[in-house]
Amino acid sequence: MREAWDVPLTPTSFLDRSALVFADRVAVIDGDLRYTYREFRERCDRLAGALIARGVNPGDRVAVLAPNNRIPLEAHNGVPKAAAVLVAMNYRLAPPELAYIVGHSGARTLIYDHMFADVVTALLELVDHEVDAIEANGPGGEYDSMVTAASPASIQVADERAMLALNYTSGTTGQPKGVIYRHRGAYLNALAGAYHAKLDTSSVFLWTLPMFHCNGWCYTWGVTAAGATHLCLPHVDAGEIWRLIREEGVTHFNGAPTVLTMVAYDPAADEGPVPRTIEIATGGAPPSPAILERMAELNMNVTHLYGLTETYGPATICEWQPEWDSLSIPEQAQVKARQGVGWLTSQQARVVDEAGNDVAADAEQMGEIALQGNTLMAGYYKDAEATDKAVPDGWFRTGDLAVMHPDGYVEIRDRSKDIIISGGENIASIEVEQAIAGHPAVLEVAVIARPDDKWGEVPVAYVGLKPSATATEADIIDHVRERIAHYKAPKAVVFGELPKTSTGKVQKYVLRDRAAQL
Amino acid sequence: MREAWDVPLTPTSFLDRSALVFADRVAVIDGDLRYTYREFRERCDRLAGALIARGVNPGDRVAVLAPNNRIPLEAHNGVPKAAAVLVAMNYRLAPPELAYIVGHSGARTLIYDHMFADVVTALLELVDHEVDAIEANGPGGEYDSMVTAASPASIQVADERAMLALNYTSGTTGQPKGVIYRHRGAYLNALAGAYHAKLDTSSVFLWTLPMFHCNGWCYTWGVTAAGATHLCLPHVDAGEIWRLIREEGVTHFNGAPTVLTMVAYDPAADEGPVPRTIEIATGGAPPSPAILERMAELNMNVTHLYGLTETYGPATICEWQPEWDSLSIPEQAQVKARQGVGWLTSQQARVVDEAGNDVAADAEQMGEIALQGNTLMAGYYKDAEATDKAVPDGWFRTGDLAVMHPDGYVEIRDRSKDIIISGGENIASIEVEQAIAGHPAVLEVAVIARPDDKWGEVPVAYVGLKPSATATEADIIDHVRERIAHYKAPKAVVFGELPKTSTGKVQKYVLRDRAAQL
Repeated sequence: MREAWDVPLTPTSFLDRSALVFADRVAVIDGDLRYTYREFRERCDRLAGALIARGVNPGDRVAVLAPNNRIPLEAHNGVPKAAAVLVAMNYRLAPPELAYIVGHSGARTLIYDHMFADVVTALLELVDHEVDAIEANGPGGEYDSMVTAASPASIQVADERAMLALNYTSGTTGQPKGVIYRHRGAYLNALAGAYHAKLDTSSVFLWTLPMFHCNGWCYTWGVTAAGATHLCLPHVDAGEIWRLIREEGVTHFNGAPTVLTMVAYDPAADEGPVPRTIEIATGGAPPSPAILERMAELNMNVTHLYGLTETYGPATICEWQPEWDSLSIPEQAQVKARQGVGWLTSQQARVVDEAGNDVAADAEQMGEIALQGNTLMAGYYKDAEATDKAVPDGWFRTGDLAVMHPDGYVEIRDRSKDIIISGGENIASIEVEQAIAGHPAVLEVAVIARPDDKWGEVPVAYVGLKPSATATEADIIDHVRERIAHYKAPKAVVFGELPKTSTGKVQKYVLRDRAAQL
Repeated sequence: MREAWDVPLTPTSFLDRSALVFADRVAVIDGDLRYTYREFRERCDRLAGALIARGVNPGDRVAVLAPNNRIPLEAHNGVPKAAAVLVAMNYRLAPPELAYIVGHSGARTLIYDHMFADVVTALLELVDHEVDAIEANGPGGEYDSMVTAASPASIQVADERAMLALNYTSGTTGQPKGVIYRHRGAYLNALAGAYHAKLDTSSVFLWTLPMFHCNGWCYTWGVTAAGATHLCLPHVDAGEIWRLIREEGVTHFNGAPTVLTMVAYDPAADEGPVPRTIEIATGGAPPSPAILERMAELNMNVTHLYGLTETYGPATICEWQPEWDSLSIPEQAQVKARQGVGWLTSQQARVVDEAGNDVAADAEQMGEIALQGNTLMAGYYKDAEATDKAVPDGWFRTGDLAVMHPDGYVEIRDRSKDIIISGGENIASIEVEQAIAGHPAVLEVAVIARPDDKWGEVPVAYVGLKPSATATEADIIDHVRERIAHYKAPKAVVFGELPKTSTGKVQKYVLRDRAAQL
């Protein structure tokens, strides 16, 4: 069979297409700046040319430290167009963590936003090798001068299995690991994202999700594939989100449930529902019934996705069945809380026991979610041992404990380490959380284990209440005992805002420390 | 880079996914028979098992001769699941033509619908090798007995570049050529089809397009990918189409403009517009202003695609720009008449001169459309010479003469052989056709060259009028002369129905013969 007429799958091809097809449509809005797809490609090609001129060779790593503005968007295309590898870094990390990533990835080029100038100064002192640091959005205008002066370049990747990006996991234990993304996987996941969200050139995608997080779930390329508008959001702020929703006609955004909560209960939401349905994809935790109900009132439709850095972002989708439209909101929330089925370009998710065999699809037997396919990482960079451990038999073990429903939908019961074993019985903290989340005053909740002399462990709940709502510890406990087994009810309830990571995940280890001192 | 975790791209994976995700939703409606995605996969897997049990080996060709019912739908998955190669044949062909295809492809298995029993008897007498012929829908119930009794099988293709199907071109000159489709290309084109048409599980796709034609433009797999319903249509009949539109809630169909014409002017259309917009993709010829206007009245949205058997069906799409919504219908028809830009998984179409260089994008300079990419055939089966001629430099020459517009949209001016050279001036027959199509009484038109002693060639128009509309030869000629250069006006106008191929293309060679006798 001939391969000569094949074209390697690469997500930068979407920009090239949209620059032709949607040349004069707005590609990027970044504050007062807005430019078209023709200009977007022009800037990315010039960025590629500039990097090559500065000595970046094919396969070299180029790190980026910037908020959700045009800088990482341009890097998502300009860096691969220089045949280099993008390392988009989490800007909430401290200088030693960032220095580790720059050191481990071997990035000798760093593009950073002026707002992180001090962080960069500090991290560069900790890196052993020379780094060509390029400041953007600063008073010197270095990045823009460089891009404007450069000749355009666009290297066609020869092998679609070449490395495209490294994404460092947040690393709750040990050092961060560099997850390898390839051109082929990102192309396919971007396509699936555009398909499932029904993105088209009339879409306006608000960047509430950090672009450094799994390369923005590959929507950095998927939104471009659709010829839609990237609406940048450097700081996640409810007031600003609502301003953009009302003024720029946002049609889509993605984010953790905490972002949804922020939007749903902001005073600006009181102005009423949005005129055109906003499609929201959420992940990291199941959306609560309260949030789903509020979102529906605001004419916002929430789709629940699931995935990890190791799977290019989303790998499953809680695919909606039309007949569920007639369910009550609490019932809809129950089905929507499930992580779902493999999305269009993924393989089906499995739930396996410790021997690697599928558990029964009975919604009861617990196992670990295992994933495979074209959108599974090519491994951890320079860490064959960790790779082998994570993917012992060709299937990636996610660390998420789940059941398989009879209809093939996966539902997470707990992260392995979040299981609460009380009096010999397993308590899935998520089950307790779901029960508490059903209380009308509750905005957000996390349940963790506290060591207990009598029971081994007992559940403790940390609860954030809705603005101006009130509830007592007894209210919450009674609410739970009315719904699930009594032994699963929390032994203590602590009210207040929950500690979270930069990507909106509740930091349960912080709560565990606090609970131990109760 | 690891490849072990990759999964070969194959369009049968869509059925496997939908059988899990949309297990209980209706996959196929074929007359009174309707079955779910779970049953659809079950049947296809059993068909694969049956073929293997009958001695079909990997790579063997399996021919199918059936109308647009469940038989070819099942074969589109069951044959590749047996690792065999599907040869879906045009049932309008005569026995000698079919025998040539069976002989050339070497198909030793033939699944056919009882309605073609006589044809099969005749063709088998003309084939040199033994053929295992399996009758479906006949009194003996052979096919269904075989499928029901077989054990399920589903061979995972090891190489996504393996052969998936052979599609024989209609062969206006010489013998039909067998166009090679691969798993990779069909997967990608099916995905693009689902994306562009926004197919989802609530969609009902009516099979007006023959499934033998480029494997139904890969919608055989694309509709399955979306978990939508395949609504079979064994005979293209306007009354039946309208019945299905009204009773089954059709949301999508594809076909040549002749199908659109048939639907638009059927008496059943007078009952008024459909409640939910029907998305229609058309190709083979540009939709006329009259049709577009009528379709809009009926709440049907027409998208113009372009492609060939050699490109897995659609390769370009007249991608709609939202600002065109405000154009008048004639203006919309003008932009919609263009073949457009590469669709999502294709490369951009080029227009090249005889040396293979791009012509200027000035909407004036003519050249030949050239295509490339993952959805270009892997060649003509057992015909390296024809392959090399068709793809001289890695770019497939389509034989369609076109211009490139400044906005990157391709527009066909003529098939090479349809150019009319009159008094030394080139006349693009399509330009004359467009002019005539703008006349309010005109339903369809074809313009061809007639030899002429004085001018070399002169244009002659064949015109079909709308029901109960009237027009004279002088009306048509005056209409043209008011719009384009006088020398381009037809020297004669003949009224009546146009001769067409089974896929709805006007048979210009028939008209040329007729015109020569005028």
